[in-house]
Amino acid sequence: MRRGVAVKRIGKQSVKFTSPPVITNTFSIVGPMEGQGPLGQRFDTVLEDTFYGEQTWEKTECKLLREAIFNVLNRAQLQPTDLDFILAGDLLDQIVSSNFALREVEAPFLGLYGACSTLAEGLATGAMLVDGGFADRVLVVTGSHHDTAERQYRFPTELGVQRPPTAQWTVTGAGSCLLQSQGKGPRVTCATLGRVIDLGSKDPNDMGTAMAPAAADTIRQHLRDFAKRPEDYDLIMTGDLGAVGVELVRVILRKDGIELGQQFQDGGLLIFDREQQDVHAGGSGCGCSAVVFAGHLFKLFAEGKLRRLLLAGTGALLSPLTYQQAESIPSVCHAVAIEVY
Amino acid sequence: MRRGVAVKRIGKQSVKFTSPPVITNTFSIVGPMEGQGPLGQRFDTVLEDTFYGEQTWEKTECKLLREAIFNVLNRAQLQPTDLDFILAGDLLDQIVSSNFALREVEAPFLGLYGACSTLAEGLATGAMLVDGGFADRVLVVTGSHHDTAERQYRFPTELGVQRPPTAQWTVTGAGSCLLQSQGKGPRVTCATLGRVIDLGSKDPNDMGTAMAPAAADTIRQHLRDFAKRPEDYDLIMTGDLGAVGVELVRVILRKDGIELGQQFQDGGLLIFDREQQDVHAGGSGCGCSAVVFAGHLFKLFAEGKLRRLLLAGTGALLSPLTYQQAESIPSVCHAVAIEVY
Repeated sequence: MRRGVAVKRIGKQSVKFTSPPVITNTFSIVGPMEGQGPLGQRFDTVLEDTFYGEQTWEKTECKLLREAIFNVLNRAQLQPTDLDFILAGDLLDQIVSSNFALREVEAPFLGLYGACSTLAEGLATGAMLVDGGFADRVLVVTGSHHDTAERQYRFPTELGVQRPPTAQWTVTGAGSCLLQSQGKGPRVTCATLGRVIDLGSKDPNDMGTAMAPAAADTIRQHLRDFAKRPEDYDLIMTGDLGAVGVELVRVILRKDGIELGQQFQDGGLLIFDREQQDVHAGGSGCGCSAVVFAGHLFKLFAEGKLRRLLLAGTGALLSPLTYQQAESIPSVCHAVAIEVY
Repeated sequence: MRRGVAVKRIGKQSVKFTSPPVITNTFSIVGPMEGQGPLGQRFDTVLEDTFYGEQTWEKTECKLLREAIFNVLNRAQLQPTDLDFILAGDLLDQIVSSNFALREVEAPFLGLYGACSTLAEGLATGAMLVDGGFADRVLVVTGSHHDTAERQYRFPTELGVQRPPTAQWTVTGAGSCLLQSQGKGPRVTCATLGRVIDLGSKDPNDMGTAMAPAAADTIRQHLRDFAKRPEDYDLIMTGDLGAVGVELVRVILRKDGIELGQQFQDGGLLIFDREQQDVHAGGSGCGCSAVVFAGHLFKLFAEGKLRRLLLAGTGALLSPLTYQQAESIPSVCHAVAIEVY
């Protein structure tokens, strides 16, 4: 089917790496509520309050990204100038948390926007830059803050507006991953990049419903492009569909004859205890899949408990302006396979 | 200096393509005021009004991007499904113009944010994907709309707020470029990716001053990394510094012994007639460098009047929220060399 010279291109939407880049180090930092959740012990830093010594939550969010950057560099005993690229993005308008965090980082910067799919978008793009021969070291970082996201997308948290049961809780946290051409760690072996999918869902308090068709589309395409079955992965983790979206993905894929079993999980459901923590449909935000991967899953690889992961980042590509103009919610999902072998 | 296997990496911030991707087709669409400017005859479509049949300017902006996408595909006699990737971004919060335009495009989508540097960021990234073996066809598209940008970043245009002389005029327009592994046209030969630079400039009505240090930094680094002189290019075009920023770049680089002569121009100064069109310091916006390149410069290549171009996209990475929180304006500049040989 392929026309030209794109030898690392597989199927309709996928790429395969000939020298799969290694995720050598990660770092995770989360807010107090995430620290009290089921994965609390897995994160590197847990904040005592949501301000972290800053005067605004936006500045806190920026500081979270900065901490994630400098701590992962410290772990790898590297300086910012050792990086070939830094790929970053966040939920704030004009991705300002990333832009401002990077003022202190002397490395070439590519700004990304993929809403909650940003980590997966960054890992896929970063892996292409490394495997394409353009970089040896790429840092991917993203994060979010509950209070900045709520006041930007919906209502200031100080208002105490009631949240419907389908709403998700934006995670406060940031996660970073260091991708290298050489080293020890799980490898990014292949990726499937998503199309924008919009089935007309319009409720900004129900992101799961909006994102589920995109997640199903990319997972289906990934399995087709590589002739794989869900069982070929130990874990297929979406990030972050919440309780509503997860069930929809199961239903959609079942119709295509794809049965997702126990190995299908969602970052938004792993990070909080929905019984105890009043988060409604689960966690969300760029920071959610970033810290669940950087804090929890990366350690599972090191502990030998995980060998084959499909990380399927899902992003709802709306803005407050678009839903005020009565538009629906387009979504995207990028899937990255991370494996040890 | 290079440590590992990144063979296409040059110097500190640059990459070089071994099979330079070809820009085979472009398309440009602009608003009425841009159509009346000095480059008016060079654009493919000029709108009769700023709404283009839509009810809001945001929907118009989205339609501009869509037109740029489908018209460049028509020119190349391709379908969206023939694309390996589409790289897009814009100035609106959460890059919604791109997200919504792509609902009708069945191709893997990577969302970018680099403010007015988005075209250059997209061309550099797209060229890495093609030369890295991950794609044969990548579409890069970006755009902006004067009235959406003004009401988002500063004031609704209906208010008629007075603009200071340092202010730039956001261009209404969108430009698309089709990058292919094979074909006829100028080639993307190398690129230098910028770091975030912030010297403390705080005036959102003076983007030129904020962006000039980033432009100077990347141009200087590009010349160093490739041991080139400015005269090695027929044209070094920044996009978009305006009258204030252009002079600052000359001054900064002169101190480093780099004299930019007549070959240094700026997209923001080319697109409008500052005497006749009341745009103050010149044009700006993602759409500016996009349409100046896609409409004007690409034709200069075809006409044999341009052989070696350095396109240096400059982005001011602020948001209304950051300047309301008394923050300065970080900036970035990505430079892409486009040549025929």
